[in-house]
Amino acid sequence: MKTLKIGVVGAGRIGKLHVANLMTRVSGATVVAVTDVVAESAKALAAQFGIPKVYGDYCELVNDPEIDAVFVCSSTDTHSVISYDAVMAGKHVFCEKPIDFDLDRINKVINAVDQMGVKFQVGFNRRFDRNFKHVRDTVQAGTIGDPHIVMVTSRDPAPPPISYVKVSGGIFLDMMIHDFDMVRYLSGSEVTEVYTNGVVLVDPAIGEAGDVDTAIVTLKFANGAIGVINNSRKAVYGYDQRVEVFGSSGCITADNETPNLTTLYTENGVMREKPLYFFLERYNEAFIAEEQGFVDAIASDKPTLVNATDGLKPVLIAMAAKKSLETGMPVKL
Amino acid sequence: MKTLKIGVVGAGRIGKLHVANLMTRVSGATVVAVTDVVAESAKALAAQFGIPKVYGDYCELVNDPEIDAVFVCSSTDTHSVISYDAVMAGKHVFCEKPIDFDLDRINKVINAVDQMGVKFQVGFNRRFDRNFKHVRDTVQAGTIGDPHIVMVTSRDPAPPPISYVKVSGGIFLDMMIHDFDMVRYLSGSEVTEVYTNGVVLVDPAIGEAGDVDTAIVTLKFANGAIGVINNSRKAVYGYDQRVEVFGSSGCITADNETPNLTTLYTENGVMREKPLYFFLERYNEAFIAEEQGFVDAIASDKPTLVNATDGLKPVLIAMAAKKSLETGMPVKL
Amino acid sequence: MKTLKIGVVGAGRIGKLHVANLMTRVSGATVVAVTDVVAESAKALAAQFGIPKVYGDYCELVNDPEIDAVFVCSSTDTHSVISYDAVMAGKHVFCEKPIDFDLDRINKVINAVDQMGVKFQVGFNRRFDRNFKHVRDTVQAGTIGDPHIVMVTSRDPAPPPISYVKVSGGIFLDMMIHDFDMVRYLSGSEVTEVYTNGVVLVDPAIGEAGDVDTAIVTLKFANGAIGVINNSRKAVYGYDQRVEVFGSSGCITADNETPNLTTLYTENGVMREKPLYFFLERYNEAFIAEEQGFVDAIASDKPTLVNATDGLKPVLIAMAAKKSLETGMPVKL
Amino acid sequence: MKTLKIGVVGAGRIGKLHVANLMTRVSGATVVAVTDVVAESAKALAAQFGIPKVYGDYCELVNDPEIDAVFVCSSTDTHSVISYDAVMAGKHVFCEKPIDFDLDRINKVINAVDQMGVKFQVGFNRRFDRNFKHVRDTVQAGTIGDPHIVMVTSRDPAPPPISYVKVSGGIFLDMMIHDFDMVRYLSGSEVTEVYTNGVVLVDPAIGEAGDVDTAIVTLKFANGAIGVINNSRKAVYGYDQRVEVFGSSGCITADNETPNLTTLYTENGVMREKPLYFFLERYNEAFIAEEQGFVDAIASDKPTLVNATDGLKPVLIAMAAKKSLETGMPVKL
Repeated sequence: MKTLKIGVVGAGRIGKLHVANLMTRVSGATVVAVTDVVAESAKALAAQFGIPKVYGDYCELVNDPEIDAVFVCSSTDTHSVISYDAVMAGKHVFCEKPIDFDLDRINKVINAVDQMGVKFQVGFNRRFDRNFKHVRDTVQAGTIGDPHIVMVTSRDPAPPPISYVKVSGGIFLDMMIHDFDMVRYLSGSEVTEVYTNGVVLVDPAIGEAGDVDTAIVTLKFANGAIGVINNSRKAVYGYDQRVEVFGSSGCITADNETPNLTTLYTENGVMREKPLYFFLERYNEAFIAEEQGFVDAIASDKPTLVNATDGLKPVLIAMAAKKSLETGMPVKL
Repeated sequence: MKTLKIGVVGAGRIGKLHVANLMTRVSGATVVAVTDVVAESAKALAAQFGIPKVYGDYCELVNDPEIDAVFVCSSTDTHSVISYDAVMAGKHVFCEKPIDFDLDRINKVINAVDQMGVKFQVGFNRRFDRNFKHVRDTVQAGTIGDPHIVMVTSRDPAPPPISYVKVSGGIFLDMMIHDFDMVRYLSGSEVTEVYTNGVVLVDPAIGEAGDVDTAIVTLKFANGAIGVINNSRKAVYGYDQRVEVFGSSGCITADNETPNLTTLYTENGVMREKPLYFFLERYNEAFIAEEQGFVDAIASDKPTLVNATDGLKPVLIAMAAKKSLETGMPVKL
Repeated sequence: MKTLKIGVVGAGRIGKLHVANLMTRVSGATVVAVTDVVAESAKALAAQFGIPKVYGDYCELVNDPEIDAVFVCSSTDTHSVISYDAVMAGKHVFCEKPIDFDLDRINKVINAVDQMGVKFQVGFNRRFDRNFKHVRDTVQAGTIGDPHIVMVTSRDPAPPPISYVKVSGGIFLDMMIHDFDMVRYLSGSEVTEVYTNGVVLVDPAIGEAGDVDTAIVTLKFANGAIGVINNSRKAVYGYDQRVEVFGSSGCITADNETPNLTTLYTENGVMREKPLYFFLERYNEAFIAEEQGFVDAIASDKPTLVNATDGLKPVLIAMAAKKSLETGMPVKL
Repeated sequence: MKTLKIGVVGAGRIGKLHVANLMTRVSGATVVAVTDVVAESAKALAAQFGIPKVYGDYCELVNDPEIDAVFVCSSTDTHSVISYDAVMAGKHVFCEKPIDFDLDRINKVINAVDQMGVKFQVGFNRRFDRNFKHVRDTVQAGTIGDPHIVMVTSRDPAPPPISYVKVSGGIFLDMMIHDFDMVRYLSGSEVTEVYTNGVVLVDPAIGEAGDVDTAIVTLKFANGAIGVINNSRKAVYGYDQRVEVFGSSGCITADNETPNLTTLYTENGVMREKPLYFFLERYNEAFIAEEQGFVDAIASDKPTLVNATDGLKPVLIAMAAKKSLETGMPVKL
């Protein structure tokens, strides 16, 4: 089987993570080029993993004829432009989420993908988590019957810097967007209406930055089911990531991952481990699985498991959730 | 210590349950009289437990000078009238929930209780469940810090008869009313706003009767916390009764009660027992604890743990939830 | 149904427990007489529960023609004599464990029971625990196939006083005797050989008193299965009472009972409750069930669930385990 | 850091596993040569992973001056000879367990390792399992105080072929040997005496081959603790691998690993996943960790975590357990 040759745009935290996995954990692919707006970052990453080419500009990279596929790991505001250019250069594209906050620009990418017939995958890595995938598969298999209620608990261990909150688009676009994708994935249906309860309980500075830090969003789905997502920017016990789907024939829940499965009995109580601290720990294997999935989709010419439309929909839901918070009214999609 | 002499109005399912517990499990009290609109039911119950007096009319019972306290276990539409008459006769009253669906009639009872200085307790038995009580105590102790998110899952094993749905006031007044009381109890705060997502997924006949069978209600609390309750009329795996309170310093959850704590490993999987089937099984000990609590409150002249106002508030929330469902808008209290 | 009239010999801790349950929780029976070598104890207990007769001597009690059944709750060294006299007086007998440490005296009781045709039950209350009963029923139903390995973990929260250790017969006769009964109950088979590993790790004074405080006993059963029991006199986290039966088609385990089923998540970890502290807490419902079982066996003229032979066998196994510890060799029964 | 150049002797199941991990998951090492008595197997493995050299004979491999370290993955009866030759050729050696069944030959290897000053590691991979390692670390940290009781449950999903049973040395040398290593690891102490209960319950053919298939071995340790291991050749629910250490200040247990952490509620019960099927699934990460540990020990010139003596001790315990089974008596070490 031909090895997929990959160029990576962006050598920051998530770019490094993808490069490390692609070079050591993913089969059928290799990274042949990297670029970053900070040239030193790109060089250092290339040196660490023996990547032959370092480009000074993403345009050079996406036009390198040796390259089959591009990973877009740059800053969020450049995702859609780079993705578009890479697609138009005939490359398969893996784009970190979100594609964009601007719907026109997302649609421009979607249209380009259709036109060029390349593979496009968005980085909703949680779909590849062993637990959530099993919940989804169980729902799809009909084991719990028709889904009636979809529930997602998603709480971060600590809030991001206020500087990030100011530019991220806020809790619905930088955090709950994963959960909006998750409820689509678990329910197998589209969200048709949302209503938001959002408050500032973790840090007043988040409120001053125009965002909330604690939120419950209820949802209606096209298939008749209803759902609810709860988010907090700060769970002192670690990254709390649980889901539940209740249906006409049963219910399935997914619990948190922990560092190990031991139980300690002492005078103070019976203790188990806290959840894994944050997404790098919790979703390490999910990142590898999404990368392998992308490589395999290209090799076998099958659809990717998170396509460009899957990148668009959660943005639409996040915008509706934000509008619901602002208006205090339910918002239809 | 003087034995509390109790008269019981209503010899149906819940009346029988209270009589049986009062005569065998509760200390410091005895049932001396019973009445029911079906005279035979009252006689049979009296015979079974050796209760000396059977009255043909509740008025006779509430005016019997030997009686210290009255349990109101009659049909829902008679709760407030009988309670009022018993209170005005100077009796302590334990009233099954709800006191009434009419706010004026509830307030009339509340005022009578104030006027007469008797004890009044409403039958929100779940407050006495060992799990929920421990969650409440943990929240009160500050162990999880300030409450941020309050979650209640409450699903019945099977829907009631359609005839009941037609007169019960619907899911918010006959089922979720327990959960409205629960969130007040767990959060230690009042509900200020609700928004309802309600659908018919279990049985179309429930929809035809003007009710929903699956609902998610989100809530705002006076102390700033937010919350969510989900209800289903039919969980095929049994009575699903779980709560969770998340706060600034931690989170506490309560799991279902089961017939035993065994685990079976076979070729088919690793199995634990289903939740106890329904409220008679799940809340058996909670019923006894609420009865004992009522008897003890009288003996020690302390406030009851679920007073008349606690009977009123969940009715108000239920009405708001119903209105939210009808209007599709959030409703303030 | 005729009410069973019971006389209780012994008003100490276990006698009080049985009287309280018989008077408040068990149906079809009432305590009509009590006696104790300390007359004041008998009087106080009678007063507390309204028991009409207090005898100064157990002989008077067992010969009272009104009494149908006798509970033998006196000191261990008097169990067999009182049981014998009660049986010979034609009374049904519930005898606290052990019947005796002397095999001749046990056999004398067994023979008397056979001769008189009365009901006889030994106080191995753990058979009535909801978890162990379910394990036993599952094994009996064939769900796990043929039993291969039977495991019992049984650890007390704190050692008894040294004065007790000196007269109790030691860990095998006062503590592990319950587990010897349990393995017979769970396996449905007889123990044929034991080997003991016993050490002093909790308190040197226990060693000085001629006993061990930590022990593992391995067992062979007549049906081919093998088993192991581990005991400790001191588990700082409370009363640890778990069993496991592994067979050709699966495995079933029973976990500890706890005060409630909540889970607390904090910065320090994920905590559940410790096991219930000791036998009065853990086996409260089991005591009631064994008492009710005894009453029901008499009412329906069915065999008791723990007969006199069931009282003998664990004593034989305990003696073999003790001999194995002394000789360092396996001992056949 | 210099890359460790490894030669692998044996291209069977375990050899392939080590090569695959070393080439894809372990950092700081690469496989440069492979050999197997079946030349085709070596060639195929080399081709798959791009290993440059294939030797026709292990002697050539261990004398290749480019090679720093040798993995001995050949058939059990050749482990000690190849290890010895590799050590005497100045190579670091990773030897699959057991080193040998002959004590003289094991000691010859131990002496050679001492003489040559090379690193030597035995393949007791379970020490690197995240759960068992955490139990060990917790015991070492003193969290549970002095260890009193060490328990290991270790059951295979299916028995090996009878042909294997005939040459493997039997259950104590091919299966329980891992558990003998585990109790040394967990207790931090040496086994001083064993007593074996062993029976044939899974397959009579195992008995005809002179072995047992179900066994309980009790142990005494030099530090005063006692322990017990139970083994079965066939657990229909999968690979059952649990440990427990009970001590003066608490108890720690490790539960099985499962494919995911979901729970399914249906009319049939509440189901979790079965344990991972067998050692390739369960100990995949442990294999990688032991390989990385070996590579790191060489790079940092630190002792390996499972040295040659750790290879000898479990063989001695296994032989004692076998002798105990044969004689029916406890055996001192």
